[in-house]
Amino acid sequence: MKCSKCGGRAVINMRQHRLRLCAEHFVEWFLAFAQRTIERYEMFAPTDKVLVAVSGGKDSLALWDVLLRLNYRAEGMYIGLGIDEGLGYSDKSLDMCRLFVRKHHPDAVLNIVDVEGEYGQAIPELARTHRRGQGKPCAVCGLVKRHIMNRIARDGGFAAIATGHNMDDEVAVLMQNTLHWQTGYLARQAPVLVERDGMARKVKPFVRFYERESAAYALVQGIDYIYDECPFAKGSTTNLYKELLNQLELNSTGAKQQFYLHFLSAREKGEVTFVETEPGQLQPCTRCSQPTTAGNLCAFCRLWE
Amino acid sequence: MKCSKCGGRAVINMRQHRLRLCAEHFVEWFLAFAQRTIERYEMFAPTDKVLVAVSGGKDSLALWDVLLRLNYRAEGMYIGLGIDEGLGYSDKSLDMCRLFVRKHHPDAVLNIVDVEGEYGQAIPELARTHRRGQGKPCAVCGLVKRHIMNRIARDGGFAAIATGHNMDDEVAVLMQNTLHWQTGYLARQAPVLVERDGMARKVKPFVRFYERESAAYALVQGIDYIYDECPFAKGSTTNLYKELLNQLELNSTGAKQQFYLHFLSAREKGEVTFVETEPGQLQPCTRCSQPTTAGNLCAFCRLWE
Repeated sequence: MKCSKCGGRAVINMRQHRLRLCAEHFVEWFLAFAQRTIERYEMFAPTDKVLVAVSGGKDSLALWDVLLRLNYRAEGMYIGLGIDEGLGYSDKSLDMCRLFVRKHHPDAVLNIVDVEGEYGQAIPELARTHRRGQGKPCAVCGLVKRHIMNRIARDGGFAAIATGHNMDDEVAVLMQNTLHWQTGYLARQAPVLVERDGMARKVKPFVRFYERESAAYALVQGIDYIYDECPFAKGSTTNLYKELLNQLELNSTGAKQQFYLHFLSAREKGEVTFVETEPGQLQPCTRCSQPTTAGNLCAFCRLWE
Repeated sequence: MKCSKCGGRAVINMRQHRLRLCAEHFVEWFLAFAQRTIERYEMFAPTDKVLVAVSGGKDSLALWDVLLRLNYRAEGMYIGLGIDEGLGYSDKSLDMCRLFVRKHHPDAVLNIVDVEGEYGQAIPELARTHRRGQGKPCAVCGLVKRHIMNRIARDGGFAAIATGHNMDDEVAVLMQNTLHWQTGYLARQAPVLVERDGMARKVKPFVRFYERESAAYALVQGIDYIYDECPFAKGSTTNLYKELLNQLELNSTGAKQQFYLHFLSAREKGEVTFVETEPGQLQPCTRCSQPTTAGNLCAFCRLWE
């Protein structure tokens, strides 16, 4: 397999782009395509401070690496969730983030928030003691992460929170939303969620990359990352959707990309319109001052009641 | 496994309905649910003449059986496509339709149109000699069937053409249309296609049944049918979608039904709107007088030029 650019040994074949690249040209292409995605969806400007939510996984570390190489003012943020499950999952994740900084970008700033240290309970414990966490801690975990990301972004004067969601992630969510015709979600799902009433702007610069491409980028750049997924994500419906979508892709090259990009363009052109659910009146939480629709205390602060 | 109605031995478990039924109560339920579907979507009235497109397969023969048992004025229509492929596919299909009449409804009327006998070429031959048939005859076949069905319906004064499409068929089409965001198709896909300018009304009374239910109905009623699918349908994308949707159903009971019914209801409530493609000006074909957007000769008549 030969590199489409130089004829050297290709390390990856991206059928949906009809492109085979050697390590050197893959990195070059990957950086340029990330840059094009940032510009195309107007994610942030070169002078903006960007907060990268890093988990220790391949996508978020690769994203941070890419943004730094593209000379963006990107700081990392690691949220210590206190998930162990016999695997030391959270500890390992933090190790990977620290190793990444030490090895690749020793001057980069990594903001660390430890949920248990700061608020008194780690996620699994918090989930067990709270109605919202019945069964799985994922709902509580999402709520806590959103709150903390928003706080750090606001307090640190960041223009946007960047997450490592790749196209496989987005397409799985799109499939979930479509299978249930959740039109409120379908109205909003996008590479950029704009800032609104104290809710920080959120952007996904890897939204045009297939998962295997961000994995290949991490590999080629020598970025070590945690291979395990969160132990609570095992057997999730999202994973099933990803598997089905990969079967589709195998049958028809570019199927995943087409599903996502046609969705965005049909919506943009008005060929399809989803009715947005009324967002409800936002007001500052009386304790943390983050925006909430829930009356006095926001859902996050009510967790700790 | 016990019948939810009488406690007898159940022959089918329909998890999405939380219903297990014995043979007798399954037939009773099946007939009543078909009747409810016909009424709910206002498919046709008790006095209407209905033309059932029968292929010799389980769905269309079961449909014809159901409509006759419900005392509708249902005639069958078999289109002889002349597909052999070493299997005698079309011959066997016609045999099954004739056997069905003889065995179950000796007074029923079966209209037979033989494509080769009437127009001079069978489908595979016609497809080979025509640009539209490059690769697979499915496009030509669909065109020919639509034309003939419409002709028989119009000439015979039928209020509607009923086809045996079940929910698995519909959901596979919905998935196909959604994966490509074909909003023109998504605007129209429905249990009823209304009559328009000489295009006959089309209805799908089995749209609420899973495929396994119509198969079970045929089995329980002793209806013999052709098990083979059309040899040209092998490896079709539709079959892949059906397989993926069954994986979803296995993971989450009712997933197929929910995907389809939520689609219909979200569209009806205006939560999602698809822009319909302009249908184009219809005028009668100068040869066959069926409606066409294509100028003088309709696409069917041009096939034989």
